Amino acid sequence: MAHLGAAVNIITSNGPGGRCGITASAVCSVTDTPPMLLICINRNSAMHAILEQNVHLCVNVLPGHHEELAKHFSGMTKMPMAERFEIPVWNCGTNDVPVLKDALASFQGRITELKPVGSHSVIFMEIDQITIAANGDSLIYFARNFCRVARDNPAMTS
Amino acid sequence: MAHLGAAVNIITSNGPGGRCGITASAVCSVTDTPPMLLICINRNSAMHAILEQNVHLCVNVLPGHHEELAKHFSGMTKMPMAERFEIPVWNCGTNDVPVLKDALASFQGRITELKPVGSHSVIFMEIDQITIAANGDSLIYFARNFCRVARDNPAMTS
Repeated sequence: MAHLGAAVNIITSNGPGGRCGITASAVCSVTDTPPMLLICINRNSAMHAILEQNVHLCVNVLPGHHEELAKHFSGMTKMPMAERFEIPVWNCGTNDVPVLKDALASFQGRITELKPVGSHSVIFMEIDQITIAANGDSLIYFARNFCRVARDNPAMTS
Repeated sequence: MAHLGAAVNIITSNGPGGRCGITASAVCSVTDTPPMLLICINRNSAMHAILEQNVHLCVNVLPGHHEELAKHFSGMTKMPMAERFEIPVWNCGTNDVPVLKDALASFQGRITELKPVGSHSVIFMEIDQITIAANGDSLIYFARNFCRVARDNPAMTS
């Protein structure tokens, strides 16, 4: 599955279950009308237990320079959850959900369905608010490496 | 949604509905055990009508040099379906499903569920056979451009 390159995102949420965030690349657009995304999250993760209680969440698509932030929210650096949100990169979005200030794109919305599939859940999310950065490259996870992909970097023909 | 960079894949299928293929970037890993992927496909596409009848399919993850192939299977070049499979890049996989010879990875398997969500269906697929290329870069679609991402191209720290 590591050969399936994908954008790196931090999923954030706030609500009755508390404030939480997790790095996830298993995020996929579903429909434009209504705007919907889906996210696959391990049912054993702390984030999953929180999302079972919360309604509101945000998918923050990471620009290329946020590899360190991605590592903090993946748990690789063992940084406690509260400290991750003390890094001065967060705004308070609708319903107090953290929104990354310099996200390549942020999708704020609410969970419409949480579908168990084996060890994971597929979380369906309807989007209420989209913020798009005019510039910036994208952080991509491919072959177990973080890579940066520029906006103006069309594929070379071989 | 164009800001959500993703690997470019060609989904192929064969069976009672016929042989068909479509370019798709809305593909996402779900679980490792059992190995499962999901694919989001527009319900109005020819591919969708065929996948409602077929069981077997393959997700072919494209290496960087296959931008033209991606365009043929997206319909951009108006190449008829039969001609697309005459391009000498296809092997015949299990259950006669076309498998791309030089795919970065190919995931052969079968549909376990086809879940309607608005204008699209989320197709859940259990994987029976995985082939991985030892080398090769990845074709990524980001900000409405095809980009190539090298395997040994770690993110630069800014």
